[in-house]
Amino acid sequence: MLEKKEQLYEGKAKKVFATNDPEIVIVSYKDDATAFNGVKKGTIVGKGVVNNRMSNYLMEKLEKEGIPTHYVKELNERETAVKKVSIVPLEVIVRNIAAGSLSKRLGLPEGTPMKRTVLEYCYKCDALDDPMVNEYHILAMEYCTEQELKTIADMALKINAYLVKYFASINVELVDFKLEFGKTTDGKIVLADEISPDTCRFWDATTHEKLDKDRFRRDMGGVEDAYKEMMKRVLG
Amino acid sequence: MLEKKEQLYEGKAKKVFATNDPEIVIVSYKDDATAFNGVKKGTIVGKGVVNNRMSNYLMEKLEKEGIPTHYVKELNERETAVKKVSIVPLEVIVRNIAAGSLSKRLGLPEGTPMKRTVLEYCYKCDALDDPMVNEYHILAMEYCTEQELKTIADMALKINAYLVKYFASINVELVDFKLEFGKTTDGKIVLADEISPDTCRFWDATTHEKLDKDRFRRDMGGVEDAYKEMMKRVLG
Repeated sequence: MLEKKEQLYEGKAKKVFATNDPEIVIVSYKDDATAFNGVKKGTIVGKGVVNNRMSNYLMEKLEKEGIPTHYVKELNERETAVKKVSIVPLEVIVRNIAAGSLSKRLGLPEGTPMKRTVLEYCYKCDALDDPMVNEYHILAMEYCTEQELKTIADMALKINAYLVKYFASINVELVDFKLEFGKTTDGKIVLADEISPDTCRFWDATTHEKLDKDRFRRDMGGVEDAYKEMMKRVLG
Repeated sequence: MLEKKEQLYEGKAKKVFATNDPEIVIVSYKDDATAFNGVKKGTIVGKGVVNNRMSNYLMEKLEKEGIPTHYVKELNERETAVKKVSIVPLEVIVRNIAAGSLSKRLGLPEGTPMKRTVLEYCYKCDALDDPMVNEYHILAMEYCTEQELKTIADMALKINAYLVKYFASINVELVDFKLEFGKTTDGKIVLADEISPDTCRFWDATTHEKLDKDRFRRDMGGVEDAYKEMMKRVLG
């Protein structure tokens, strides 16, 4: 029987607790919302529940597709047991349609489909504002090894192929999303963190209405409703 | 006999003229200096002569090493005949030692040697402030083909290997530099633009004194002397 022990870490949207199993930690999802590297702060009521349940549902699906993840077991509506991993210090951003910083960077109107899936890497470092880095930076700085980077890129593209189809089936365009990967104690790379409206841009495929955290970032209102709508489409 | 015809283009540091040969243009180097995408402007007396002569000298050396370049013939101290190319819209930055924007991006003190040579690509677009892009952006936006990108990266690393050794022989550290590549009318990728104190960071290997355009960017004084010193070391 898994027992929750001391808090190991509190992040912007989640807390992590030790357990009696050294290979397992418990993630607890909060309703706290931040944007722009913590400059904007707020609360999205019920967000923790949506993100926990949606992320678990999708990680289970991905496991069935042969993608290893950190997911072990949902404990309650806000808490999940996951494998203890050391996080690779990269945000892996997968982009199908131009939006946000990519639109600004390349001068593309939001909504422009990319001719090929674009991967971007950001070095996870609040003090440096999570700078975009390329494969040469990653290897020179030893953020991970060349083989790990190849595994991560391959997994990110496979995850994208699966999720694009899945979200299309619930009339949602998967515009872009952020992934994080971790290394288990035996050195295996697994998908970690979460897949949720906090980490993905979801647009209704018919109306192009935003159903994600951009409603919070951009003060658009209807934030809670968007999260609830996504939970309804994913979990019924 | 090559005849200079109408001006085709005036850039920040060079003018380009047509000739009676449709495959050849004449580049004319100015003393005008700009930095920070044209925000800072000035004149570095004699710079055009230094850059023209140094760049030609190095391109001749690189040709002998099997690197194809746009170089054809030096016409006078400021003017050179080069192959007419369509420029690949990328600045290719090669970095051996952290400095400038790389130091800021990764939080590395200037002077930190990189464990591996780092290549960076920026999309040449003044309106977007030459944004850094990665290989996925380049291919999705079709700035060049996958094969061309591979050729460019291979050439950049070969050029670096040669130049690092060459500059070491004249007691200069090649910290980083910017390259541009062009496509000749028959589709061949060649090194274009220039290799000069405008496009390279040169540090005296003993004193680490800056011998390049950073003296202008950072208002350090001694700008003309630095350019002259580099010309003396390269051309004797």
